[in-house]
Amino acid sequence: MIEKEVKEKLRAVVGAEHCLEATHECFGYSYDSSFIPMSPQNIPTLVLRPGSTEDVAKIMTIANEYDIPVTPRGTASGRTGGSIPAAQGISLAMDRLTNILELDERNMMVTVEPGVRTIDVYNACAEKGLFFPPDPASWKYSTLGGNVGENAGGMRAVKYGVTSNYVMGLEVVLADGSVINTGGKAIKNVTGYNLTQLFTGSEGTLGVITKILLRLIPMPKKRNTLQLMFPSLDNACNTIHSMLSSGVVPAAAELMDKISIQAVAKHRHLDIKAEIGACVVLEIDGETDADLDKQACQIKAIAQKHEVLEVRVAASQEEVDDIWSIRRGLSSAIGAAAPNRFGEDISVPRDAFPEVVRLIRQIGEKYNLTIAVYGHAGDGNVHPSVLCDLAKEGEEERVHQAINEIFDAALSVGGTLSGEHGIGLTKRPYLKKALGEAGVNTLKLVKQALDPKGILNPGKIWE
Amino acid sequence: MIEKEVKEKLRAVVGAEHCLEATHECFGYSYDSSFIPMSPQNIPTLVLRPGSTEDVAKIMTIANEYDIPVTPRGTASGRTGGSIPAAQGISLAMDRLTNILELDERNMMVTVEPGVRTIDVYNACAEKGLFFPPDPASWKYSTLGGNVGENAGGMRAVKYGVTSNYVMGLEVVLADGSVINTGGKAIKNVTGYNLTQLFTGSEGTLGVITKILLRLIPMPKKRNTLQLMFPSLDNACNTIHSMLSSGVVPAAAELMDKISIQAVAKHRHLDIKAEIGACVVLEIDGETDADLDKQACQIKAIAQKHEVLEVRVAASQEEVDDIWSIRRGLSSAIGAAAPNRFGEDISVPRDAFPEVVRLIRQIGEKYNLTIAVYGHAGDGNVHPSVLCDLAKEGEEERVHQAINEIFDAALSVGGTLSGEHGIGLTKRPYLKKALGEAGVNTLKLVKQALDPKGILNPGKIWE
Repeated sequence: MIEKEVKEKLRAVVGAEHCLEATHECFGYSYDSSFIPMSPQNIPTLVLRPGSTEDVAKIMTIANEYDIPVTPRGTASGRTGGSIPAAQGISLAMDRLTNILELDERNMMVTVEPGVRTIDVYNACAEKGLFFPPDPASWKYSTLGGNVGENAGGMRAVKYGVTSNYVMGLEVVLADGSVINTGGKAIKNVTGYNLTQLFTGSEGTLGVITKILLRLIPMPKKRNTLQLMFPSLDNACNTIHSMLSSGVVPAAAELMDKISIQAVAKHRHLDIKAEIGACVVLEIDGETDADLDKQACQIKAIAQKHEVLEVRVAASQEEVDDIWSIRRGLSSAIGAAAPNRFGEDISVPRDAFPEVVRLIRQIGEKYNLTIAVYGHAGDGNVHPSVLCDLAKEGEEERVHQAINEIFDAALSVGGTLSGEHGIGLTKRPYLKKALGEAGVNTLKLVKQALDPKGILNPGKIWE
Repeated sequence: MIEKEVKEKLRAVVGAEHCLEATHECFGYSYDSSFIPMSPQNIPTLVLRPGSTEDVAKIMTIANEYDIPVTPRGTASGRTGGSIPAAQGISLAMDRLTNILELDERNMMVTVEPGVRTIDVYNACAEKGLFFPPDPASWKYSTLGGNVGENAGGMRAVKYGVTSNYVMGLEVVLADGSVINTGGKAIKNVTGYNLTQLFTGSEGTLGVITKILLRLIPMPKKRNTLQLMFPSLDNACNTIHSMLSSGVVPAAAELMDKISIQAVAKHRHLDIKAEIGACVVLEIDGETDADLDKQACQIKAIAQKHEVLEVRVAASQEEVDDIWSIRRGLSSAIGAAAPNRFGEDISVPRDAFPEVVRLIRQIGEKYNLTIAVYGHAGDGNVHPSVLCDLAKEGEEERVHQAINEIFDAALSVGGTLSGEHGIGLTKRPYLKKALGEAGVNTLKLVKQALDPKGILNPGKIWE
């Protein structure tokens, strides 16, 4: 509930045309890309579309005065409920703040507003020969504000890191409406605590990000794609390990297990040999064709030591697209394999990839569930997909038990609950397992310090 | 003052042989590598040498109960007073915690205690073909705890980043004695706020770091050194800019201005041509000799477009050592050029390097002071050295005014107070200028949340 007079104050900040109040309008702001079911309890009371940092500051000042929850929102492509207004109140839609404010070619940095799409930043930079590497699967519609809020990853993390590795500075509106600037264009910067990295990945719970300064790197001039088929996951993982430790670092190293491969084969009517137990798709990049040839030769030689069954080096853009379409179509193919699917996002030490996959298989057997596994093998980020049919009696309970055990498996090998999706609402129950009582308390102390009334994205990260 | 019975409790934690109490013994823990004059007010009441995390936790529990300041200390190689016990109390000497606990070759990570020296970590990893790149000037005696506490940089930051880019996780004892673990071996990790990066660079004010997990990279197989002489700083900076934006990234790119070059020439009796206005020393690395030759050719071609006067590519290890000895001897050469010297550590956007050097020259002229400038041009980290004679009347005041204006100059071009030395005691007065009132308040809120009694390294970062 927001009092009528307070609503009027808030409406006045953005103007009536940028304020939604009708339930049927606000409904569209109640869900995201996670498997959290739609619920009237997640419909915000108001949707506000600020047009400037000043608007955001005014909104926060009012919200803080009247204890109104505020949940920032990009395009809601998040997978864990980060942008769902779980305590209702205000959904702060950043879709008017879509400008690329400055592309500083000399310093290789770009300043953007939070509502700009990842792909638009990528393209604007690419035009100038500059490269913004983070590529979450949703990069064609996700926004930078969300990418920073969740610290989005993607396929290129193995060589180029994740969003946080590119965030140099932020403008943030705090819970009380005050505005701070963190970081800056100086590459080395040890002035004060690293608030830039504290806000990055804080899931909208510590402040509202209103400007983002990102560093860029020169765009690699050449790229190519390889597809490697192995008899087992161990062979595939050992190949990736040998590559990385010998200094051959691909831009992406994606791995699919047998269940995933067979789901794609069925979905796309492909003929995949029965002895294939794992598929690795690699992107390599460099300055010249000779660079790429050299890398491809090195990778081939390493893979042959690990019993590779097939090596396919793309000879044309069509072949590149063809290979990637298999990886990109994986999620839909797996989704089509069963009535329901729960996709997870654990992250383990790179070396523990085969071990955690073995544990996940055992969990699948224990609960009589098919669990497909694919992921970013180069960085240990595993996406297990539990295939199920919630219409079956007891299935939902079994799925939740299985997911619980998948998290235990990740933690048991030194991994963590989430590699790139965040904790949000869906992983809250498991946080204490991962961080311990003292760890969770430390997060709460930081939250309490920066948002004493708890109005920023309440209900997220911990229970 | 610490009560006798509390002293006894603290002594009992570490054992009498690891507790120093006599003033003449504690004196050695009252200063560091900064220009802060020695003072009896900085002599700790007790020096404690914990032998384990449990010892640290017990000490913090007691210190928290009795409001005793605790200042962690490595080898005191810091340049801004970070390890000086400015509020007396306990100097927590980490010199018993010197183990490399695990070198995980498969995941390319190393776990160390805070008292281990940087060079020992480097060597242990190098033996296995792994590379820990951060190389602060003090790396032969600095410790990892201090490197992480101050987020140390070094010459290789241009290609490989600074200490924080390698910190994957920490064990931290909080002010109240509780122990938390942050991060881990999972490369992608978005479980909770990024406390790892919050503690890194927090200068011992938020917790005591007791274990450090660092990522490593494969050791480049080949290295070489180039020395380039230019008529002006602009030529030198433009060359570096062109290199980086075309993807030729050296492992180090060090720049010296005319005053610095002449100081070295005088100190080492070298004959340097009068028309030389700037010297750049580059380290390049790669997999093969051919890689290095290619880079050297590219660099030569770029430098020639920017009027380079001399290009020297080292042909032997002796020549490499010779070139680097000039850069490494710079600090002593400049120190020898005047009775007193104040070395600073501003950091600016890379592109603003020539502009800030011009501003620094104007400041030198205004205050009739010689200011030598050298630094890590590849990353915009500038070390201006104010040469002076404090015995002269009014000189100290003029020096401080000049330094104040150097900070203004850094901020005016979008830079910051410190690139790699921290704020500590020496830069506190300038913090508000850099971060603004709201920015400093945010730091204080975080500090207050994690150390409500203010016992951890009190008096640092802000006034």
